[in-house]
Amino acid sequence: MNKFLLHPILEKDTFFIGDFALCRALLMNNATCPWVILVPRLGSAQNPVRELYELTPEQGALFIRESNFCAAQMAAEWKAHKMNVAALGNVVEQLHIHHVARFREDPAWPAPVWGNVAQEPYSEGEAGATMERLRSIFQELLLQS
Amino acid sequence: MNKFLLHPILEKDTFFIGDFALCRALLMNNATCPWVILVPRLGSAQNPVRELYELTPEQGALFIRESNFCAAQMAAEWKAHKMNVAALGNVVEQLHIHHVARFREDPAWPAPVWGNVAQEPYSEGEAGATMERLRSIFQELLLQS
Repeated sequence: MNKFLLHPILEKDTFFIGDFALCRALLMNNATCPWVILVPRLGSAQNPVRELYELTPEQGALFIRESNFCAAQMAAEWKAHKMNVAALGNVVEQLHIHHVARFREDPAWPAPVWGNVAQEPYSEGEAGATMERLRSIFQELLLQS
Repeated sequence: MNKFLLHPILEKDTFFIGDFALCRALLMNNATCPWVILVPRLGSAQNPVRELYELTPEQGALFIRESNFCAAQMAAEWKAHKMNVAALGNVVEQLHIHHVARFREDPAWPAPVWGNVAQEPYSEGEAGATMERLRSIFQELLLQS
């Protein structure tokens, strides 16, 4: 019963894109910026992994590979001016790493997005289209399910 | 002449702790929270590295080792409730990664620190004492200079 389970807040706020070898890839349900969250599929609901430094060296190397792949693909697809990559977790304790494509024209620039953008859920059509783009650019590392 | 040079804003806002194999370790001159910035010593002033995904896989693996070491040591030394680790760079384009020890009692909790804490420079004594603690906990990975 010691199984990985996504935190209920992440479950509620995101769409499931797919799984990489280590991380679950999620689309944040906020249309302000392309915003992907990676969650290492480690720990359990009772005993979640909270910090990147809890990963073994092998898991850490795999994580940075998946994170860099995710950021590079998003930057290229959306022609981002900057990628913001952050492990915060002050509210949701389960380790999750934000990957946000930023633009000089986005409403929070140059401030970070957290606390500086409105809740702006995707319409159903936009969510579907964004998911399709993400599954396509992430294809190389997505496990077949 | 294609030499690594710290960005002038980082130079102004931080104290030099020392160099790891890949990253320069800097103490942010803000006494609100223990706040270390790692800067991979790559690129040049003319052509700075801006994104983590520009690192080679080997540099990426080394980076995550140094970052996790830095975060784990800070968390243990200051008994942090959470480490916030972030590569933002919307203002200072040279790649630099924040490592901030956060506490449920700090003035920005649970929001991120960026934009949410006052400029609070260290007194000379505090800066010296903090640098001493950091050099001591980072000793294992600091290059001898």
